[in-house]
Amino acid sequence: MDNGFKLKHLLGIRELSVDQITHLLDTADTFRDVSRREIKKVPALRGRTVINLFFEASTRTRTSFEIAAKRLSADAVNISVSTSSVSKGETLLDTARNLEAMAPDCIVIRHSSAGAPHHLARFCNAAIVNAGDGAHEHPTQALLDALTIREHKGHIAGLKVAIIGDILHSRVARSNIYLLSKLGATISVAGPGTLVPPEFAALIEQGVRVERDIQDSIADADVVMILRMQRERQTEAFFPSMREYAVHYGLHLSHLSQAASDAIVMHPGPMNRGIEISSEIADGGRSLILDQVTNGVAVRMAVLYLLAGAGKSENGAKRGQNGKHVSRGSSLTVREGPVNKEKRERGKR
Amino acid sequence: MDNGFKLKHLLGIRELSVDQITHLLDTADTFRDVSRREIKKVPALRGRTVINLFFEASTRTRTSFEIAAKRLSADAVNISVSTSSVSKGETLLDTARNLEAMAPDCIVIRHSSAGAPHHLARFCNAAIVNAGDGAHEHPTQALLDALTIREHKGHIAGLKVAIIGDILHSRVARSNIYLLSKLGATISVAGPGTLVPPEFAALIEQGVRVERDIQDSIADADVVMILRMQRERQTEAFFPSMREYAVHYGLHLSHLSQAASDAIVMHPGPMNRGIEISSEIADGGRSLILDQVTNGVAVRMAVLYLLAGAGKSENGAKRGQNGKHVSRGSSLTVREGPVNKEKRERGKR
Amino acid sequence: MDNGFKLKHLLGIRELSVDQITHLLDTADTFRDVSRREIKKVPALRGRTVINLFFEASTRTRTSFEIAAKRLSADAVNISVSTSSVSKGETLLDTARNLEAMAPDCIVIRHSSAGAPHHLARFCNAAIVNAGDGAHEHPTQALLDALTIREHKGHIAGLKVAIIGDILHSRVARSNIYLLSKLGATISVAGPGTLVPPEFAALIEQGVRVERDIQDSIADADVVMILRMQRERQTEAFFPSMREYAVHYGLHLSHLSQAASDAIVMHPGPMNRGIEISSEIADGGRSLILDQVTNGVAVRMAVLYLLAGAGKSENGAKRGQNGKHVSRGSSLTVREGPVNKEKRERGKR
Repeated sequence: MDNGFKLKHLLGIRELSVDQITHLLDTADTFRDVSRREIKKVPALRGRTVINLFFEASTRTRTSFEIAAKRLSADAVNISVSTSSVSKGETLLDTARNLEAMAPDCIVIRHSSAGAPHHLARFCNAAIVNAGDGAHEHPTQALLDALTIREHKGHIAGLKVAIIGDILHSRVARSNIYLLSKLGATISVAGPGTLVPPEFAALIEQGVRVERDIQDSIADADVVMILRMQRERQTEAFFPSMREYAVHYGLHLSHLSQAASDAIVMHPGPMNRGIEISSEIADGGRSLILDQVTNGVAVRMAVLYLLAGAGKSENGAKRGQNGKHVSRGSSLTVREGPVNKEKRERGKR
Repeated sequence: MDNGFKLKHLLGIRELSVDQITHLLDTADTFRDVSRREIKKVPALRGRTVINLFFEASTRTRTSFEIAAKRLSADAVNISVSTSSVSKGETLLDTARNLEAMAPDCIVIRHSSAGAPHHLARFCNAAIVNAGDGAHEHPTQALLDALTIREHKGHIAGLKVAIIGDILHSRVARSNIYLLSKLGATISVAGPGTLVPPEFAALIEQGVRVERDIQDSIADADVVMILRMQRERQTEAFFPSMREYAVHYGLHLSHLSQAASDAIVMHPGPMNRGIEISSEIADGGRSLILDQVTNGVAVRMAVLYLLAGAGKSENGAKRGQNGKHVSRGSSLTVREGPVNKEKRERGKR
Repeated sequence: MDNGFKLKHLLGIRELSVDQITHLLDTADTFRDVSRREIKKVPALRGRTVINLFFEASTRTRTSFEIAAKRLSADAVNISVSTSSVSKGETLLDTARNLEAMAPDCIVIRHSSAGAPHHLARFCNAAIVNAGDGAHEHPTQALLDALTIREHKGHIAGLKVAIIGDILHSRVARSNIYLLSKLGATISVAGPGTLVPPEFAALIEQGVRVERDIQDSIADADVVMILRMQRERQTEAFFPSMREYAVHYGLHLSHLSQAASDAIVMHPGPMNRGIEISSEIADGGRSLILDQVTNGVAVRMAVLYLLAGAGKSENGAKRGQNGKHVSRGSSLTVREGPVNKEKRERGKR
């Protein structure tokens, strides 16, 4: 593996090259098989410590990272910090540095402030993984979405992708726009004017088409991505009512009929059924919502493996004294990933 | 093991056959030894994922399941969901399906609504274990109680069991009544009229004697089961005062003197000392309260093993490709359980 | 190892002999290396269960114990109990006895009441480790502080140590005073009169010099320990304002200039920057604050190993039937600790 995959942290999609993204997805492909086995565990990260440091509650993402770490045989440590306790005195950086002094290999961080993971990455030696920072990025979500699209469409280049909902506040939208643009998809976004301002296309510095009418965005789309409506934000009155939102921007069959006949539907969850998506569609044959969750574990295994495991050593990072898990690392290729290697080695015993 | 033990989920005692109950208890017997060793761990569930999904706080039950999973070498993932966050939009079924998409082998669920685990079982492929659903059932509690009685009395058939307290709202009472009746015990219940209505016997569809006076229930009992008084419910004024409850329905020595001379006393915990049980009795020689807790770990190991482990394969469920932990499964008998097998195999190495 | 290290519980420093303290520190020295490896894991506590029972929130200490347990291959179970739920009925002792019935090898407890761990130790068989009890003791903090001083100064005897801040309410101060006095250091304390009453020296029954002026305490000090200012306590008005505290008792460069030229600075965290310590000093070359955190993991590994692991057997405690991890225990010496032994044994394979 000397294809130039040098990544110490995963802070966002924006900074990644197409090769890095492809390598992450290819590695995730090889890990997908692990969760299908009866013994869902490989020794890749044995003796490594992964800290999940969540400043915002997120059962789903935390669980996905925790399961990914455990299936790689890492020691996973969960820390939930309510913002209130942090304001009692210690800075975010002090919290992170203190954790780092306990020698974790990776700190997965979710934080309500955009840029928090980048701040830590500048001052910490542990690999930092952004699990969502404010309205900025959520890179593993975009990677799992891309993995799901690639699995079902075979490719990403040339696809038409519609992203519908609260684009302005969505880190999911932002990371997906970066990733899918880099890989050659054409993207249009739609939502209420307050949530998808005309100047958004310029803000995002990517070739994104902004539509007012959801139908114009969905027309001929190969992929329809629905964003979660953050009902908590309703107080700010970005639109008149949930009911009205559901009618105009919720995905129901009449809207979906505009898309390509083999269009797939995605949602990052948790879903508000009957608001941004109808149950018919959520539970229908085009929905890949549960595939996304399954791929989330595979993507997070790939990220942890490449940043904290033997994958790291291949990238020119410090090589451990204990050669056991590292020695054959240089034979790892994209086509024969860590899982096949592990299988082959089991066969030898 | 082809004694007809076919169980995909453990939702309640009511649906179980006597053979299934006996097989669960016999398996638990073999696991009891594991927690007495210095190395309290067997590889039975290595590479399996057990999710503890608790919608009600329960340190005790969650810890018991977590320790059981870990002693079987499973990866245990804890999820505490406050009902408030659930009401933010996602349905219980969506939550469970999303977790299931992460490929757990077993989801242990506690929920305040009766029937929640059954609902999930209809739509999920993972094995569902009911860790308490509303006022409905708490099957592992009844199994650990039965294991404790069997350990101390040698048998259950023919025993007289008195259950005292808030029968109406108690899932512990309900599951115990089903289980002990099936195994041939005679059951009487007693408590304030508001908590043990005369029509209860009919409701439960089992041969249960309903007594108003605790002394009539305890008379000649071989087993006295005290239920926890849920002080939270006091607002509904089911009885005049805690003090009055303690005098009339609390178990103190004068009440216990009515029982058989070798009667044993049980309580599911946590105890309200001085209310439903006196400290003299709780700490006395007849109390098996801590034995119940110890047996709880063994029972939960058995349940997880039979539903999520090699035990599952024996029952005709899907057989893993990786034959390692499964291949000798067919030689497993009730008399020589998984633990002895594991011991024997260790001896071979 | 028959140097008389007989310790069933770690309740406080006060009860420890100099030999016991030295043995704990020497064992921690050997474990420090584990966290520097790529595979940060030794099998010393495989199959043992460590319960972290925290009645007060403490992300840092809980995480340190959890990581220590996992790097020793123990099964770690976290329990956070809010005092409110405890007051719902169950006594502390009942909670602990119930946990003990699940056969943990060690219960690590943090509690707001002084003496809580001692209470449990009288009635429980599991090894009890005090992770902070009220304003009483915090023995692992003192051990990690001593390990850090020894690492940087080479010895403790003869050093001048200044402890600054809220001495009266600090379990950190108390444990450090006991430990450093026993090992031959000279200690002076300083802080506002309300927090360092003149009679403190007598209270602590140790040779401690009480100073009013921080400069008198720091003069010629080899070690300056800054305590965390518990802002929560401000309501009690122990001093006029945080600002005033910072000026008079905060450690800034003009105060530190009074210390020995090679003085080291320590703080148990979390820090209130700009209040009890200036950022210049916290981030400066004399600060060992992050070394303390690193050593915390090593100390906790040593404590868990000696109380719950093979180390226990050497001390004359019950010897397991399964001799695997115990058999060579008697060859363990202070100079060749568990880690080197583990390394040597790995070499043999």
